[in-house]
Amino acid sequence: MRTLTVDLGDRSYPIHIGDQLLARADLLTPHLQGRQVCVVTNTTVAPLYLDTVRSAFSGYQCLDVVLPDGEQYKTLAEMNAIFDALLRGRHNRGTTLVALGGGVVGDMTGFAAACYQRGVAFIQIPTTLLAQVDSSVGGKTGVNHPLGKNMIGAFYQPRCVLADIGALATLPAREFSAGIAEIVKYGLICDKPFYHWLRGAMDGLMARDPALLTEAIYRSCANKAKVVAADERESDVRAILNLGHTFGHAIETAQGYGVWLHGEAVATGMVMAADFSARLGWLAPADVDDLRALLARAGLPVAPPSDMGVEQFLDLMAVDKKVLDGQLRLVLLRAIGEAVVTADFPLHELKACLAGAA
Amino acid sequence: MRTLTVDLGDRSYPIHIGDQLLARADLLTPHLQGRQVCVVTNTTVAPLYLDTVRSAFSGYQCLDVVLPDGEQYKTLAEMNAIFDALLRGRHNRGTTLVALGGGVVGDMTGFAAACYQRGVAFIQIPTTLLAQVDSSVGGKTGVNHPLGKNMIGAFYQPRCVLADIGALATLPAREFSAGIAEIVKYGLICDKPFYHWLRGAMDGLMARDPALLTEAIYRSCANKAKVVAADERESDVRAILNLGHTFGHAIETAQGYGVWLHGEAVATGMVMAADFSARLGWLAPADVDDLRALLARAGLPVAPPSDMGVEQFLDLMAVDKKVLDGQLRLVLLRAIGEAVVTADFPLHELKACLAGAA
Repeated sequence: MRTLTVDLGDRSYPIHIGDQLLARADLLTPHLQGRQVCVVTNTTVAPLYLDTVRSAFSGYQCLDVVLPDGEQYKTLAEMNAIFDALLRGRHNRGTTLVALGGGVVGDMTGFAAACYQRGVAFIQIPTTLLAQVDSSVGGKTGVNHPLGKNMIGAFYQPRCVLADIGALATLPAREFSAGIAEIVKYGLICDKPFYHWLRGAMDGLMARDPALLTEAIYRSCANKAKVVAADERESDVRAILNLGHTFGHAIETAQGYGVWLHGEAVATGMVMAADFSARLGWLAPADVDDLRALLARAGLPVAPPSDMGVEQFLDLMAVDKKVLDGQLRLVLLRAIGEAVVTADFPLHELKACLAGAA
Repeated sequence: MRTLTVDLGDRSYPIHIGDQLLARADLLTPHLQGRQVCVVTNTTVAPLYLDTVRSAFSGYQCLDVVLPDGEQYKTLAEMNAIFDALLRGRHNRGTTLVALGGGVVGDMTGFAAACYQRGVAFIQIPTTLLAQVDSSVGGKTGVNHPLGKNMIGAFYQPRCVLADIGALATLPAREFSAGIAEIVKYGLICDKPFYHWLRGAMDGLMARDPALLTEAIYRSCANKAKVVAADERESDVRAILNLGHTFGHAIETAQGYGVWLHGEAVATGMVMAADFSARLGWLAPADVDDLRALLARAGLPVAPPSDMGVEQFLDLMAVDKKVLDGQLRLVLLRAIGEAVVTADFPLHELKACLAGAA
C-alpha cells in the first residue's frame, strides 16, 4: 500500500492506494465522527463490494443507499434518495457518508455530504480507474443539469480516500480505458517524464499489471494533488486539469449523458486541444500524432462524432464554467507537460480546428 | 444609515441598515464580480420592489427569477427555477445572485449561489423584519425536506446585506410580529440590557417607529454577528441562536410548513424553553410570565397547538440538527440574557413541560 497526503491545511486528507483495502476498518473508522455511517453505491457495484465494505463498519449504525447506475442519473432529483435514507434513519450531523463506486457515485455522495444538515463527513472508495485518479482527488462534487454538466455542486473535501487496485479486476474494458485517458492527461499537462513513462508502460497497464497500476495511480494523484493544493477553488492554475474537457463536455452534452463515457470524451477532447495547440505553433504535428497513437493503444476514441458540426461545438462550449464575461477560455498545450489556460487565440483558428476534427 | 461589519476574516461583509436603500447602486455594484446579475424574488415582493432594485443594475446583464411565495415552496425542486434561468441566460462564475425578499427567498438564493457552478457571489436584500434580523446574518442557507426543515443546505456568506426599513411599510402584521419574536430572542440569549430596552420600546416598535426599528435591527444583527463570528459553522456556541427552535420546528413540521409562521413557532418555542428552564430552577416563574406578556404585546402566540401531544413533540424533536448520537440537546436559559446548550436534563421533566404546554 502506498499513501499520499493531499495538503490543504486543516482539510488535508490521505489517499491510500493498494490491494484489498475495502474491508480495512483500521483505515476507515478513525475518520468517522460518530456512530453513524451511510454507504452510498450503485446497482452495479453493490452486489460486488457492498457487503465487504459494510463489514468494516460492524458495531456502527450503518445504512446503505443503492443508486441507479449511470451518468444520466446524476441529478438533483436522484440525490433525494440519499437525503430520504439519512432522514428516515435519523442520521445527524455526526454521520459519515461513504461513496463506494465510480465518479458519479463519488460526485453525488460528496455533494450530498456537503449539503446534508449543511455538511457532514465523507469518505471516498473509488472503484473505477477514472474515479481513482480523477474525481476522488480535489473535492469537486456535484450533479448535472439538462443544460450543462456538473453545473450544480460544491467544493468539498473527503476525510480519506481508499483506491483499491483489486476492485479494478471487475471493471469493463471501456471504463478501464476511460481511466487511462485521465492518466495520460496528467503527463500532458504537467509531467513530461510521466508521459514518456506511460508510452513505455501502456501495454502493461492495459494488461492491468498491479505494480504498474499502483505507480500510475500514485503519480496521477500526486500530480492532481499538487495542482489542487495550489488552487483549491479553481480561480486560476487548477483549470489546467480541464485539458480536453471543454471539447469533451460538448461531445457528452450533444450525445446525451452516458452515451460517450467521460474519459472517452476527454481523450478526444485532448486530441482536439493538442491539434489546436499545434495549429497555434506550440506543439509539433508529430506530438499530436504520438498522442493520438498512445490513446488509440488504450482503446480510446480520438475523433468526435461525425454528426457534430462547428456551430454545435461553439454553442455547447459557450456554457463552459471557464467562460468569463462571454470570453471562451481553453486549456491548451505550450509543450508536452506544460498546459496553459488562455483566451488568446483567433476564433477562425478554433473554427478551422473544429471543422478539421469533425 | 447605520453600517455593521460581520467579522469572518476573508468572508467579512457589511450590513447596511436604513431607509431607501433598494436602489443604491453605490452600495450594491462594488460587490459584483462581473457584468452579470440575477435578482431572485417572489410573487409578493416582485410587484413592490423588483423594478427599484433592477434600476440599481442598469448597464449590467440583469436577469430576474420570481419564485412562488411561501415556506412550502422552499424545496430542492423549486430551486431548479434559479438554475434554469442562470443556465439559459448563460450566467457564468462571475455572476452575482441577489436575494430580494424574506427568509425563504434568502435561504434558497444563498443555497443556489453556493451550488451554482460550485459557488458564485451573493447579496442579500431582506424585505421582512425576520429576514433582516435573522436569516440575512450568519450564512445559513438551504431548503426543507418533507422529513425536516432546513435539512439540505450550506454555510455560505453574502458579500453585502441591505436592510431597508422602508420595505417594512408593506409587511403584513403577522409577519411583522414574527420578526419581533427573533428580536426578543437576542435579548434573551445574550443581551439582558437589550431585553429590558425592548420591554420599554415594544409599543413604539409595534407602531413601526423608524428610529426604534433601526436600533432594534442594529442591535439584533450585532448580537447575531458576535455569536456567528465566534462559531461560523455551528460546532458550539452558535447553537444558542436556536433558542425556541427545537420546540418551534416540531410545531412547524406537525402543522405543515407555512401554517404557523417561523417567528410564531419560535415565540411559542421560546416560552416553552423558558418554562422548562424555570422547571429546572434556572429562571423565576415571574420571568416566564414576563416573557409571555412581552410576546403577547407583539401579537405572538405563546402556547402550542392544542392537538399536539408529548409523543408527537418528542418524535419530531428527535430529528433536530443539534441531536448528537441519539442525545437530544436543547437551548435553555440559565438566566435572562444567558443561554446554554445542554443535554443534561431529566427526560421526565421535559415530558412534564411538554404536557403542561400543550
